[in-house]
Amino acid sequence: MYVVLVHVRVKEENIDDFVKATLENATESVKEPGNRRFDVLQSSEDPCRFILYEAWGSPEDAAAHKNTPHYQKWRDTVADWMAEPRRGTEYTSLFP
Amino acid sequence: MYVVLVHVRVKEENIDDFVKATLENATESVKEPGNRRFDVLQSSEDPCRFILYEAWGSPEDAAAHKNTPHYQKWRDTVADWMAEPRRGTEYTSLFP
Repeated sequence: MYVVLVHVRVKEENIDDFVKATLENATESVKEPGNRRFDVLQSSEDPCRFILYEAWGSPEDAAAHKNTPHYQKWRDTVADWMAEPRRGTEYTSLFP
Repeated sequence: MYVVLVHVRVKEENIDDFVKATLENATESVKEPGNRRFDVLQSSEDPCRFILYEAWGSPEDAAAHKNTPHYQKWRDTVADWMAEPRRGTEYTSLFP
């Protein structure tokens, strides 16, 4: 699996809005044929910090995700709620 | 789900040893009743960096993992291969 961890810090006043929009995006994203996981994680230490744990069959599947209506809606909806720019880190999954 | 990301940096000469020992541990860990995911991720930017993505039904399930023979064997086996102390970060999974 090709994995991207998207590190997000949200403005405190937008946490609830962000969660709602992100769960909508996750619900659609797991229906994509190339998707393996789309876990939405909230930090136990700082509720403003989230990680989107996205696992895909291939890098091409991750790229295709960015062309979907649900991703593009999410991206535009959450833009003003970011406390800092999102940061993605890439991994290869050795297991499973 | 209760999620722990274990951030690991391994000495370059021990990458292969670490992968072997960690895949053995992962193979046993996914059999634990409280385990939901045990993904072993290697950084695309730096092959010495790994994340163990561990999802559990509850914090108690994660604590029980530390009492298993396979975890304790892994912990002792990899100890000298660490380039720096491991670091765990905790999350609540909002999806799925």
